[in-house]
Amino acid sequence: MKPSNFRPVAYDGGVLTLLDQTRLPQDEIYEQFKTVEAIALAIEHMVVRGAPAIGLAAAYGIVVAAHRGTPLSEADARLRRTRPTAVNLFWALDRMKHVWLQGTDIQPLEDEAHAIHQEDAANCLRIGEVGAEFIPDDATILTHCNAGALATAEYGTALAVIRAAHSQGKRIRVLADETRPWLQGARLTTWELMRDGINVTLICDSAVAHLAGRGEISCAITGADRIAKNGDVANKIGTRGVACILQMHELPFYVAAPWSTIDLSLETGAQIAIEERSEQEVTHIANHRTAPEGVAARNPAFDITPAAWVSNLFTERGATGQNIAHGLASISSPTL
Amino acid sequence: MKPSNFRPVAYDGGVLTLLDQTRLPQDEIYEQFKTVEAIALAIEHMVVRGAPAIGLAAAYGIVVAAHRGTPLSEADARLRRTRPTAVNLFWALDRMKHVWLQGTDIQPLEDEAHAIHQEDAANCLRIGEVGAEFIPDDATILTHCNAGALATAEYGTALAVIRAAHSQGKRIRVLADETRPWLQGARLTTWELMRDGINVTLICDSAVAHLAGRGEISCAITGADRIAKNGDVANKIGTRGVACILQMHELPFYVAAPWSTIDLSLETGAQIAIEERSEQEVTHIANHRTAPEGVAARNPAFDITPAAWVSNLFTERGATGQNIAHGLASISSPTL
Repeated sequence: MKPSNFRPVAYDGGVLTLLDQTRLPQDEIYEQFKTVEAIALAIEHMVVRGAPAIGLAAAYGIVVAAHRGTPLSEADARLRRTRPTAVNLFWALDRMKHVWLQGTDIQPLEDEAHAIHQEDAANCLRIGEVGAEFIPDDATILTHCNAGALATAEYGTALAVIRAAHSQGKRIRVLADETRPWLQGARLTTWELMRDGINVTLICDSAVAHLAGRGEISCAITGADRIAKNGDVANKIGTRGVACILQMHELPFYVAAPWSTIDLSLETGAQIAIEERSEQEVTHIANHRTAPEGVAARNPAFDITPAAWVSNLFTERGATGQNIAHGLASISSPTL
Repeated sequence: MKPSNFRPVAYDGGVLTLLDQTRLPQDEIYEQFKTVEAIALAIEHMVVRGAPAIGLAAAYGIVVAAHRGTPLSEADARLRRTRPTAVNLFWALDRMKHVWLQGTDIQPLEDEAHAIHQEDAANCLRIGEVGAEFIPDDATILTHCNAGALATAEYGTALAVIRAAHSQGKRIRVLADETRPWLQGARLTTWELMRDGINVTLICDSAVAHLAGRGEISCAITGADRIAKNGDVANKIGTRGVACILQMHELPFYVAAPWSTIDLSLETGAQIAIEERSEQEVTHIANHRTAPEGVAARNPAFDITPAAWVSNLFTERGATGQNIAHGLASISSPTL
């Protein structure tokens, strides 16, 4: 599996550079960020998105703060307020805090953020290998949202599995659902996979059950934003519906995520905070109003998929097997 | 239940007037059509849509042909080629053909088309009464696509049930999913219900499972484009997914349709032709490209919901009960 020729998150000398994911696929624009507030806004406005990439951007946010002389406790508090659902944000900030509580020198903070970056890329590579074993030759794989290189340090999670299967010479076809309201599937997953020469077809979210019913889907795979101890999975809105439909059609539904996405402090998914975002994301598409003026709208950004609808969870420590909670408890040591 | 203050389909003196549904909700524009070819294109381009309204427009298309002196067999053949899935088109053209095979005088043809129009409005009124019995007070009702006054002669099918429950004084809230790719929910259902002062909230198609899982949906109701003898339902793409999700959450999924939508010549839904429409409806939203140039896309416009996932079917002849096939067989005479 080769790395991509784009860098969603890069850091050098006090400056964080992000590939602006609000502008893809039309424009590939890299923006520079030199303050914690600018980085926090970039996370809130989804210039950078995807659980592992958000964690990485926040870690570099602490390094930027140290460069600027911003108090690190203030920087930490601001970054924690950006988005509530993905646990990787809090996990990465906890790692950084462990360092700055021992001293505010810049070099150890830079080293820690770079370590998070490199570990995430290595973990994604391993997740791809773990998951690819479960992808048969000649498979049509549905994916929801973008759990790709754009959402991580490199390779992706769900898309790492797809990339690994592809690089092993398996003939695979990907169905990317568009993932309203933010269109990560239409805008980002198609863009990534087309760049890698992997066969991808775009469908509407509403076409999943039709294609599953016709035998045109072999399995589905998504990433995750937070996974509770019992195996319940928080992920992009629509994931629960995909899992429900796959379950009813007796098709495997897989989740791929690094260990940093697992939150063993929560017993079940019911305890995971679900972000509600602006109604305008639903009433408009690309700044074009689709619904009548004044209409009410709801925009939950994530949902919870019960562990019972997840066929397997791929992590860098291995696959959990069908009993996710049992698998999580038994994978106690990293295989890397 | 009061009639709406808009007319999706109206005919007078050789001219068919359609409310252009491609322009809603921004603009309420009525266009005049004086040739069969123009009417056929209006059906293909969804200026008029919804199974009963398509049948009605086609019936008037035969009257327009008679006025213009267009050979009626040619008009009939052209109109039959417009859209394959909704059976009401063929049913209405069969009724008109029965008349013109006996003579090509305009008056009997006009009378037959007007009869189809008035019967559809009366049937929708009755469907509303039949279905409203199953809507409890204080219900949150999900609806997919637009099975409203815009899709019929008047009142709608699914929305007639909602209107009847509302006019009976039941406190109801409607969730309209946006219904990609054509956004009938976002553009049309919200517009209709807001005009009638019925509480409506817009959600993305992908939010249905989340809200069902949280207990925020009481039941769902949709229209239909064709119903086979065994009770399988062809309807707008995404209906099967909604029904699947409602079934898995043990929530009722209702279908409302006039008897003209039932096609007893087909044993099962597998025999129903599914229209595939332009990829551009998926890669673009309102002429704005969302996906990368050159991406492949699939755009099935309808899907089949198995009868087992339908809790009840409301027709002007009564409700079938949970065994749809048995109910269809036993409702042998109209109650009107």
